[in-house]
Amino acid sequence: MTRLPKSVRMVEVGPRDGLQNEMKPVPAATKIALIDKLSGSGLSVIEAGAFVSPKWVPQMADSAEVLAGIKRLPGRRYPVLVPNLKGYEAASAAKVDEIAVFAAASESFSQKNINCSIAESIERFRPVTEAARRDRVRIRGYVSCVLGCPYEGEIAPAKVAEVSKALLDLGCEEISLGDTIGVGTPGKAQAMVETVAKQVPRERLAVHFHDTYGQALANILATLELGIDVVDSAVAGLGGCPYAPGASGNVASEDVLYMLTGLGIETGVDLERLAEAGIFITRALGRQPASRVAQALAAKRTARMSS
Amino acid sequence: MTRLPKSVRMVEVGPRDGLQNEMKPVPAATKIALIDKLSGSGLSVIEAGAFVSPKWVPQMADSAEVLAGIKRLPGRRYPVLVPNLKGYEAASAAKVDEIAVFAAASESFSQKNINCSIAESIERFRPVTEAARRDRVRIRGYVSCVLGCPYEGEIAPAKVAEVSKALLDLGCEEISLGDTIGVGTPGKAQAMVETVAKQVPRERLAVHFHDTYGQALANILATLELGIDVVDSAVAGLGGCPYAPGASGNVASEDVLYMLTGLGIETGVDLERLAEAGIFITRALGRQPASRVAQALAAKRTARMSS
Repeated sequence: MTRLPKSVRMVEVGPRDGLQNEMKPVPAATKIALIDKLSGSGLSVIEAGAFVSPKWVPQMADSAEVLAGIKRLPGRRYPVLVPNLKGYEAASAAKVDEIAVFAAASESFSQKNINCSIAESIERFRPVTEAARRDRVRIRGYVSCVLGCPYEGEIAPAKVAEVSKALLDLGCEEISLGDTIGVGTPGKAQAMVETVAKQVPRERLAVHFHDTYGQALANILATLELGIDVVDSAVAGLGGCPYAPGASGNVASEDVLYMLTGLGIETGVDLERLAEAGIFITRALGRQPASRVAQALAAKRTARMSS
Repeated sequence: MTRLPKSVRMVEVGPRDGLQNEMKPVPAATKIALIDKLSGSGLSVIEAGAFVSPKWVPQMADSAEVLAGIKRLPGRRYPVLVPNLKGYEAASAAKVDEIAVFAAASESFSQKNINCSIAESIERFRPVTEAARRDRVRIRGYVSCVLGCPYEGEIAPAKVAEVSKALLDLGCEEISLGDTIGVGTPGKAQAMVETVAKQVPRERLAVHFHDTYGQALANILATLELGIDVVDSAVAGLGGCPYAPGASGNVASEDVLYMLTGLGIETGVDLERLAEAGIFITRALGRQPASRVAQALAAKRTARMSS
């Protein structure tokens, strides 16, 4: 295949973006064990928590405890989501090495999700990113609804580019483009990335696909072909969008890794150990991993044992 | 995206390749209703049955009854699988308009699956294809294990090309390249198709992916980029490989259609009606469709009803 990157950095978002959307609260000890297993699989970036109001997001109320409990391996990063200066101060006290801020490419989604306009959200992040830059804490920016919004439908790629550029100007070192409701298809994903890449250097872009309509791997492949080499995913396909109950969530890290490995792309991640982490957390949640690879590996193991 | 075809012919294999692998027997009336619903969705080719020994494949024992019961719409084709001359005679009596023969790219798989070598299977098809050509019945050829074999592991693309060429020489108008165990990834799929295309004209090739490892849509996208414009799939992701129990089966037609439509590729198929056919058959089987699109559409409908 032409123009594929030689290596890809997988950004694991399961412990935060995934578990945040779980109805069932997960104890801090389980989160810590999960993050340590994920580190052990070779993942270099693992989103570990969020310093947000426990009133709004009770699932993340124990993030300080989680950050204090995990083994921070050298060369790894454990970013946390931070919505405001108060959150940043708590994150800073927990000695985080990277923060993430979160904006939408859809005005309606911004209003419903974080209760302010896109422009207001950017202004709200300014003191946060100023503090982080002063403290030399790395900043990641998320843009949601980049290929569709549950309220507005299609989103103009130019709007995604505008919000991405605003996050870049705030000091974000990386912008993750999120198809929050998983409606995108490969051609639209490419067109969107090409439009954003006119405003934000391509090497600063990451992609974040949900598998709601099963399109995530095809979309990732299409953006790899454009030179994108940072891909978000969640072990066992944890999480999902609270606005689409029952629908699949983040693309499963196991499935992404299987494809990347098959394409001969280096990731530094071990599939067996990653799949074990997925089995660990889905057992704790009392269900099956939403990863085809995890299911296939489990079926193979069962077949081997019964033969 | 560059070089994508303007239109794609979707070949629906659910009623045969799908239901053949179901443990639960499906009554002929249910199969007839399913095929008619699939026709109604706009699919132009629907694999309708198999004239094989009922001792080996009891699931297909009622194929004559099914063929007699369906409404054959103009411009549509309803191929059936035929392993030998006896099967062809039965198919001919049932007035089929297309037959399919089935060879493997792996010697071990051929031995275990149809109890003869690849060369012997080709020879066995010769009287069948001669009869079909005489009767002006269209012939489709399947090659299985094109990206891996459960017994041999990796399969050389040259072997796939050799078997494909042998089927072409027998008079097959189309060769469907099947990743029977779903282990392929996009780069390997492209390399395999490119090798086969040196022996068989590209416009005579179809691809047949299983979603066992979640790679099917990415693989389809990669082969569309090479100009392949015939894609096999099964509504609701019916079927699977009997050698990998619990693993996902054929790629779901709904998921393929969603991607093709998003890419602006014409298919003539209506997603709502296709999804209805999938819900119909999975209800009859007592489970959920193995299609992310079907699940997402169902979740949306539930959310709408409860809001």
